[in-house]
Amino acid sequence: MTTQDARTPENGQNGRKPGWHKGYVSGSRPDIRVPVRRVHLTNGTDVTLYDTSGPYTDPHIDTDVRRGLAPLRENWIIARGDTEEYAGRELRPEDDGIKHTAPRGGLRNLDAVFPGRPRQPRRGRDGTAVSQLAYAKRGEITPEMEYVAVRENVTPEFVRDEIAAGRAVLPANVNHPEIEPMIIGKNFLVKVNANIGNSAVTSSIEEEVEKMTWATRWGADTVMDLSTGRNIHTTREWVLRNSPVPIGTVPLYQALEKVDGKAEELSWEVYKDTVVEQCEQGVDYMTVHAGVLLRYVPMTANRKTGIVSRGGSIMAAWCLAHHQESFLYTHFEELCDILRTYDVTFSLGDGLRPGSIADANDEAQFAELRTLGELNRIAKSRDVQTMIEGPGHVPMHKIKENVDLQQEICEEAPFYTLGPLTTDIAPAYDHITSGIGAAMIGWWGTAMLCYVTPKEHLGLPDRDDVKTGVITYKIAAHAADLAKGHPGAQDWDDALSDARFEFRWEDQFNLALDPDTAREFHDATLPAEPAKTAHFCSMCGPKFCSMKISQDIRREHGDAMSGTPGEELDPDEGMRRKSEEFAAAGNRVYLPVTD
Amino acid sequence: MTTQDARTPENGQNGRKPGWHKGYVSGSRPDIRVPVRRVHLTNGTDVTLYDTSGPYTDPHIDTDVRRGLAPLRENWIIARGDTEEYAGRELRPEDDGIKHTAPRGGLRNLDAVFPGRPRQPRRGRDGTAVSQLAYAKRGEITPEMEYVAVRENVTPEFVRDEIAAGRAVLPANVNHPEIEPMIIGKNFLVKVNANIGNSAVTSSIEEEVEKMTWATRWGADTVMDLSTGRNIHTTREWVLRNSPVPIGTVPLYQALEKVDGKAEELSWEVYKDTVVEQCEQGVDYMTVHAGVLLRYVPMTANRKTGIVSRGGSIMAAWCLAHHQESFLYTHFEELCDILRTYDVTFSLGDGLRPGSIADANDEAQFAELRTLGELNRIAKSRDVQTMIEGPGHVPMHKIKENVDLQQEICEEAPFYTLGPLTTDIAPAYDHITSGIGAAMIGWWGTAMLCYVTPKEHLGLPDRDDVKTGVITYKIAAHAADLAKGHPGAQDWDDALSDARFEFRWEDQFNLALDPDTAREFHDATLPAEPAKTAHFCSMCGPKFCSMKISQDIRREHGDAMSGTPGEELDPDEGMRRKSEEFAAAGNRVYLPVTD
Repeated sequence: MTTQDARTPENGQNGRKPGWHKGYVSGSRPDIRVPVRRVHLTNGTDVTLYDTSGPYTDPHIDTDVRRGLAPLRENWIIARGDTEEYAGRELRPEDDGIKHTAPRGGLRNLDAVFPGRPRQPRRGRDGTAVSQLAYAKRGEITPEMEYVAVRENVTPEFVRDEIAAGRAVLPANVNHPEIEPMIIGKNFLVKVNANIGNSAVTSSIEEEVEKMTWATRWGADTVMDLSTGRNIHTTREWVLRNSPVPIGTVPLYQALEKVDGKAEELSWEVYKDTVVEQCEQGVDYMTVHAGVLLRYVPMTANRKTGIVSRGGSIMAAWCLAHHQESFLYTHFEELCDILRTYDVTFSLGDGLRPGSIADANDEAQFAELRTLGELNRIAKSRDVQTMIEGPGHVPMHKIKENVDLQQEICEEAPFYTLGPLTTDIAPAYDHITSGIGAAMIGWWGTAMLCYVTPKEHLGLPDRDDVKTGVITYKIAAHAADLAKGHPGAQDWDDALSDARFEFRWEDQFNLALDPDTAREFHDATLPAEPAKTAHFCSMCGPKFCSMKISQDIRREHGDAMSGTPGEELDPDEGMRRKSEEFAAAGNRVYLPVTD
Repeated sequence: MTTQDARTPENGQNGRKPGWHKGYVSGSRPDIRVPVRRVHLTNGTDVTLYDTSGPYTDPHIDTDVRRGLAPLRENWIIARGDTEEYAGRELRPEDDGIKHTAPRGGLRNLDAVFPGRPRQPRRGRDGTAVSQLAYAKRGEITPEMEYVAVRENVTPEFVRDEIAAGRAVLPANVNHPEIEPMIIGKNFLVKVNANIGNSAVTSSIEEEVEKMTWATRWGADTVMDLSTGRNIHTTREWVLRNSPVPIGTVPLYQALEKVDGKAEELSWEVYKDTVVEQCEQGVDYMTVHAGVLLRYVPMTANRKTGIVSRGGSIMAAWCLAHHQESFLYTHFEELCDILRTYDVTFSLGDGLRPGSIADANDEAQFAELRTLGELNRIAKSRDVQTMIEGPGHVPMHKIKENVDLQQEICEEAPFYTLGPLTTDIAPAYDHITSGIGAAMIGWWGTAMLCYVTPKEHLGLPDRDDVKTGVITYKIAAHAADLAKGHPGAQDWDDALSDARFEFRWEDQFNLALDPDTAREFHDATLPAEPAKTAHFCSMCGPKFCSMKISQDIRREHGDAMSGTPGEELDPDEGMRRKSEEFAAAGNRVYLPVTD
């Protein structure tokens, strides 16, 4: 492996020297260049961190949101020779939620959905599975697998074997060549997903693209576009063309728009049309609530909060309206055969997840989980990569059962959970109620954590909420990596703790998950530049800084600390001698702050 | 038990009708009136919550920060007949960190330390133990015990027995009659402590008093005054006279001020003088780092972050300077005999707690814990209530060992932990890194959680930081209560989840841990009053609200949901019939929002 660095200007703050730079680690071939964040410490060493921020933080790359990112993987996909370009499904006004009779707005000019390079959709030739799972099962190591191996500091063979076993997924639609490949599985770093998406009430296309880049800037490993209002197709196109991370969706939301929000008018045909539309656009993974069976719906009748998954409640309404089994379940194999030709990964949705502490781990939830286990086996047999979604609202003592059951029932398929929230009493702080649960469930084996923002239950997250949600979940994910003993995870903590103990304030800031806020908080009470090298902070003041006292002790009593007192002396005599040594050294515990 | 309610005006927001009111639950005698927060729901029911906010939220009580709170417990203390008033130690300028030669500031007029009612200190007659532990051991139930029994919804006998066993403490200095008694023990609700305190660098007396009332307003069960700068005595006096919750301190901080910050000049005499000074003022519990022994200091030599407890580092410096055993350890029994005459509770400090993930659960930490176990036995035998402090920085997988060992070594004495922080990488978000650990350690048996604010490691918390810290820790404590299956804990979650499912927005806000922020977040996207009764929020919009769909399903398909389809019919026939029922009902899944 060779490395390359690009000097990156600091994003944000006032003319300060950059504290970190975009770097690249190369694989076995020149087109495998894995981005990293290199934090340059004032003691001359570097700390290398995982980087999700994409080309946007590389000053050598000229990005333009109207052109989209470069198709990094295109040559890899073409070189495999198992895909074909084709005309694709015709775009229609209703793809953007526009009725034929609507006077204006969205998709007026279908060619203008996205102004970037023209492209035709691609798919596996003659229905061939072109999934990373299919390749892994055949023993092949793709460039994508090598890329994530470099990224995770493991061997490509390990990556391949984890994918082949269904223990990990590498979401990478052949129509989304822009992504920097990443992997989701319990034997890799715990990942974080950020949800974005407009709703009927608020938000715009530009805002959603900006939220996506913003989320990845702070560490989101994947992004789900949960848009439900107008311009749903166009928003997704812009997000996909500009996203360096895999994009997930819930196709059911768009399908429902196509039938004017009438769940009972949904059909396999409308749904399938929507799935193909999104596969052609490049969606990398799709939440499919195929486990909500008609017979499970009555199990929710006595729940405190019924069905809280949007997709779950829509499918439950459909099942009851028709008194038929869910078309997602009855057409599941056909759905597999579509997804495998684009390498779209299943995220099997937990439509009956608990929406309150009272409903956690109930009959409905676990009945659906068993069906998801059945679907997972079908998907795997058809070479479709699959992960399983999990709750929701769960008190701490019931969390572990969720992972254990999921791992058993779903043959260790990656678990992808929403929180869980460990109490219901704190709307406006559900990033925290759920960050607690997320850290724990990550420790116990969840592969990816879906973030929750402070606006959960209350409204649509804005830019600040997205950042808070991502940071909270990066904390949870990293705490989980530490608890799992993930190799190398603690290096980051150690580097920051060393900087803290040695009063290297700038290094502390630059190593922080959020350097800007750490610096701002410090400066709020001690703004002057000299304070950045002070051997204390405003919290305790100079006399009470334990780090300083502790350092002074080490400096002055290195000797005394090297053994227990009076090893070979009469104890009293030893004590006296040590005491005299100290007096001779000036009797000072607090050294002047000079270095 | 009878109840009384006082209508309280909403604190804060613009002319809205009050959503909750201060109420009281009476015990067996008229002067036992335990405050509660009664949330009035729009469906006509009340939810009663634990209330720490003191008289400040009762409009019938006229509070004045210059006069202090009414001495609620004074008659109880006098009636016991085992205490005496006495002249007390003379106040000196150095009590406020003023040198005799200093030209101005602090304690200039010693009578003006606090302008409220004149008082003389009180203590146990002839060295008598006047602690709740002494009474409990004798089988007595004090009014304080009955008060907390009402507050915790248990029997007074249970409270007495837990205290007698040393499994719980009821911190209540006879010189702090203003407090509303509360209890700390693993078989009670998990409690939260908030730290306040000026430092040499910033902050004022008024700010500290305001921070104390603000912290209790949001749910702090106790407050520690960790002031270290000027006016330390006067600040504490104002805080004590105005505090409805027990106040803790670290006397060593003030003792160090008295010797101009030179740790080696500390002595038992200076320390004892400070302890008596603070006992006479009314401090309810004191952190004493008596477990930092000379022979443990070398164990920290190879640590990543040395000694991070301020008190621990001061005592370590003293031990090394003198090469003698800590005077806190050698005079521990004498210290017990002082504390028992005021009923001051020990909080045995973990001076060698880990300050980084790397140092968690190491030799130094656990060596000190064993000494704390020894000291706990001595204190208990001398009728001094005792709790044990715990870490710090600990990765998730090492947390449980901390509680288990502490409980074993310290005979189930209440554990009182700082966090622990589960990773070091997120300065500015350490309320979250530690909230995760706090929830877990609370679940496993910690009795009180010491909050961490976003400013931890960076600076002194301001008002907003105090609120964020308290709210985060109330979440952790409540999540722990739920996980422990504490009786009645889930009622709060259930009430809020019911309100959520039934779209009672105002009830959701009023039941929230932070009603103001919950309302503000909701209003940010849907500000109009009708939105408060809307059957959706801006997050999903009307068509995608799962709660709404779920409700509609229940309303329209109550029948269909009462059994599995086709119980006594041919399955196809049953399906058809159910489907027809649905069509006959209008074929609508989304009912108009009319109720």
